[in-house]
Amino acid sequence: MLTKINHLGIAVPSLSEAIPFYRDHLGMTFQGTDEVAEQQVRVAFFQIGESKIELLEPTGPESPIAKFIAKNGAGIHHVAYEVDDLVEALRKLESEGVRMIDRTPRTGAHGTLIAFIHPKASGGVLTELCQLAH
Amino acid sequence: MLTKINHLGIAVPSLSEAIPFYRDHLGMTFQGTDEVAEQQVRVAFFQIGESKIELLEPTGPESPIAKFIAKNGAGIHHVAYEVDDLVEALRKLESEGVRMIDRTPRTGAHGTLIAFIHPKASGGVLTELCQLAH
Repeated sequence: MLTKINHLGIAVPSLSEAIPFYRDHLGMTFQGTDEVAEQQVRVAFFQIGESKIELLEPTGPESPIAKFIAKNGAGIHHVAYEVDDLVEALRKLESEGVRMIDRTPRTGAHGTLIAFIHPKASGGVLTELCQLAH
Repeated sequence: MLTKINHLGIAVPSLSEAIPFYRDHLGMTFQGTDEVAEQQVRVAFFQIGESKIELLEPTGPESPIAKFIAKNGAGIHHVAYEVDDLVEALRKLESEGVRMIDRTPRTGAHGTLIAFIHPKASGGVLTELCQLAH
């Protein structure tokens, strides 16, 4: 069902403070930034092998990332696994009784289809499934 | 310097409760368990693409994983990136003034060489570098 880790989402207070560690010290390929207005978040993308690192900076106090940092401090916010067919994956998980945040796909950055599994189902890890746009 | 995400380490109170989610619901390839006595931890391994998921269950109250769960709850404990030459990577990071937990490699599971970067340097994420045994 899953093909790989698509990305790790890491909550940081400031992109400009966090980018140098990943780009300069770890030497990951920096792929630029994007803003997701409805989530009040700015994202910096890095490629590492077949996966990405996404640094998530809150742009307003109502951002889920602002709330995460206030509660937990900076750190890994979620892991996203890539699937070939998200609708089919959600159908399988629902038939198995897995608790979901999203029962139908919604649209993420770059036209990706995404859905979140509830952390209660995955032992405390906020887990995203994503299907790339074709 | 880094070639890929080698693994994600996820702290869980109980392997037997967490394994079914990753093996049966997400369908990852379960590769068995191992015990690391000096860390008081039992580990379950799953393959996902070029990376692994390592579920970490504490086997005693002094386990770093027991302390992590007591403080943060279950969740992602660390991320490990693979490098070709760990000694060279540590030399580079030290020359750049990056704060380290380990300044020299130590031996992890399966003869892997590992070293941890201090979370203060990496914006709150416990970050491991590892070099596979040859």
